[in-house]
Amino acid sequence: MGKTRLEAFSDGVLAIIITIMVLEMKVPHDPSLASLAPLVPVFLSYVLSFVYVGIYWNNHHHMLHACTHVSGRVLWANLHLLFWLSLFPFATGWMGENHFAALPSALYGVVLLAAAIAYWLLQQAIIASQGQDSVLRRAIGSDWKGKLSPLLYLLAIGATFVAPWIGQLIYVAVALMWLVPDRRIERTLTHTA
Amino acid sequence: MGKTRLEAFSDGVLAIIITIMVLEMKVPHDPSLASLAPLVPVFLSYVLSFVYVGIYWNNHHHMLHACTHVSGRVLWANLHLLFWLSLFPFATGWMGENHFAALPSALYGVVLLAAAIAYWLLQQAIIASQGQDSVLRRAIGSDWKGKLSPLLYLLAIGATFVAPWIGQLIYVAVALMWLVPDRRIERTLTHTA
Amino acid sequence: MGKTRLEAFSDGVLAIIITIMVLEMKVPHDPSLASLAPLVPVFLSYVLSFVYVGIYWNNHHHMLHACTHVSGRVLWANLHLLFWLSLFPFATGWMGENHFAALPSALYGVVLLAAAIAYWLLQQAIIASQGQDSVLRRAIGSDWKGKLSPLLYLLAIGATFVAPWIGQLIYVAVALMWLVPDRRIERTLTHTA
Amino acid sequence: MGKTRLEAFSDGVLAIIITIMVLEMKVPHDPSLASLAPLVPVFLSYVLSFVYVGIYWNNHHHMLHACTHVSGRVLWANLHLLFWLSLFPFATGWMGENHFAALPSALYGVVLLAAAIAYWLLQQAIIASQGQDSVLRRAIGSDWKGKLSPLLYLLAIGATFVAPWIGQLIYVAVALMWLVPDRRIERTLTHTA
Repeated sequence: MGKTRLEAFSDGVLAIIITIMVLEMKVPHDPSLASLAPLVPVFLSYVLSFVYVGIYWNNHHHMLHACTHVSGRVLWANLHLLFWLSLFPFATGWMGENHFAALPSALYGVVLLAAAIAYWLLQQAIIASQGQDSVLRRAIGSDWKGKLSPLLYLLAIGATFVAPWIGQLIYVAVALMWLVPDRRIERTLTHTA
Repeated sequence: MGKTRLEAFSDGVLAIIITIMVLEMKVPHDPSLASLAPLVPVFLSYVLSFVYVGIYWNNHHHMLHACTHVSGRVLWANLHLLFWLSLFPFATGWMGENHFAALPSALYGVVLLAAAIAYWLLQQAIIASQGQDSVLRRAIGSDWKGKLSPLLYLLAIGATFVAPWIGQLIYVAVALMWLVPDRRIERTLTHTA
Repeated sequence: MGKTRLEAFSDGVLAIIITIMVLEMKVPHDPSLASLAPLVPVFLSYVLSFVYVGIYWNNHHHMLHACTHVSGRVLWANLHLLFWLSLFPFATGWMGENHFAALPSALYGVVLLAAAIAYWLLQQAIIASQGQDSVLRRAIGSDWKGKLSPLLYLLAIGATFVAPWIGQLIYVAVALMWLVPDRRIERTLTHTA
Repeated sequence: MGKTRLEAFSDGVLAIIITIMVLEMKVPHDPSLASLAPLVPVFLSYVLSFVYVGIYWNNHHHMLHACTHVSGRVLWANLHLLFWLSLFPFATGWMGENHFAALPSALYGVVLLAAAIAYWLLQQAIIASQGQDSVLRRAIGSDWKGKLSPLLYLLAIGATFVAPWIGQLIYVAVALMWLVPDRRIERTLTHTA
């Protein structure tokens, strides 16, 4: 009841976030290869954020699949998540335009951290709305990736002040962590079923 | 009949409004903390407007749930509401970039007021389309929040010319008024059911 | 079969067009009333185009309701219509920023004319896909508004070179023509039914 | 299961891509005909890209129609396709603003090539998810257009360094190749059925 519109609205916001980020790659006014050079870090930060928004869309999709009742708390927890995701274009653009400098890289991690916490809160809201014997609680299992990610983001934020590239590396590693094993789990599930 | 597309179109417009507002936070060209300082008021005004659009989306969602027939008047009353909501990014950006100065704060209130009136007109259009014994009329009850909000906006618009922060405070208070009790009502409903 | 996605995609494009137009109202950098003055024509042209996109969305909605089969020709006729509608933000912005000067006003009419022709082509494509005894053909009746509009746009385009305000007046009149009688017809239908 | 949201998200992204491209046609600040002249190549590149996105939307629509199960691989192959399509506005703008110069025209071809490969990968992912006796495999037949297009893009990329207009011509030819015969096939199918 109402889940379809929640999904449609979230899809709309995520689709716009993912597409608006590309606007930070400003079209150069001359046709030389040299004019593309300063866009390389902007492009790389775009790729990273595209993957992150893709992961969020993918997980959001699966989580709402297990959601049976949309309570007011779920609605607002979802908007809260969308709020932090809506800051991705800003954080991505600032990091890319400043060639992965320390402070913008740290802010990028703060936005990732806030989004991860918001995702966890939404998960809790859905579980709470399902009462005892929640389908979602069983589906997420130990949720070690959900618990590990915020810690790694914290580590990465600290690391950017030592050397920004360590922070970047952790951001990439967390993204890969979410990408790779999901497939393995799904394959296992399909084989069992 | 046709309600799905009305919802889908409204969701699309609201999703774009909410995401376009964030574009007013222009990415600074240097990576210093100082370059973020002038963005703080823009960020705060973004948070306020995000919450307002969230409230509108939420209430719109519930109102259309109680809508059984989409008449031509409902279609246009809905577009009229979307029109005023589409001015949120402009009003938000002007207020944020000018650090909550009097005139932009007043204009922000005017847009809030116009949107509230448009929402009320849409509500009336739906009630009229349902004839006597309207489901929506019973659902909204006394609608004291819907009646109080425009008065508070008017008060706030006047107050901005005395001291802008009084106006801001009222805008925040109205947003909280919509956020908090909705949950209480829903909880009551769930307990009764 | 496939109609849902055609509607969803069209809704998405129309929602973005209507919201992107507002971006032409650039946020002024000072909080004075004087800084709003040059935005008045931009705002007026935005209102006009908002109404036009609203009319198109409304009519598109009704037309596809009567569409039973989505052929390849229908798909491309729909994209062709969306193409011309996607030029609304440009034409609106150029007319508004240049205070309704002759040439931008004429171009605005050209885009309106092209969209009207594209709408008619889409209508024909749907009628053709339904073969003899087309539901849509009966529903549109004599379609005098559809036939009159292009002629009025042509007249308006010519008139802008005599005095731009005559052209503007015709654009407003055509919009009103679409707005007003639709309600009357619907009311008649509801009374009869 | 989940296909609806995959389609909705893809529709959202494609709708935004198609509409964002038009923003590269910056509104001129004076109302003269001369001010439109430099926009002609931007407009032409917009038309070409609009047709390409239309073709992708159209084919994507048909391909997902034949998709029965959305696996994780399908989800990510779809996001991968959307990634390359999201670079259309940038590639289109750079080519248009630089009046179809060699390097931007080549980059445009690279994005077309990458999108074609991503589309092929998505097709393979769907076929793989359907196992033996895949509906999609039978539906695409020899897929000569899907195989020929990447070769033609490669040829066009090379040709832009000899004379950019040869590359442009090939881009237009490939677009026409996708537009024209589709109608013929569909008409044949309808006549047979």
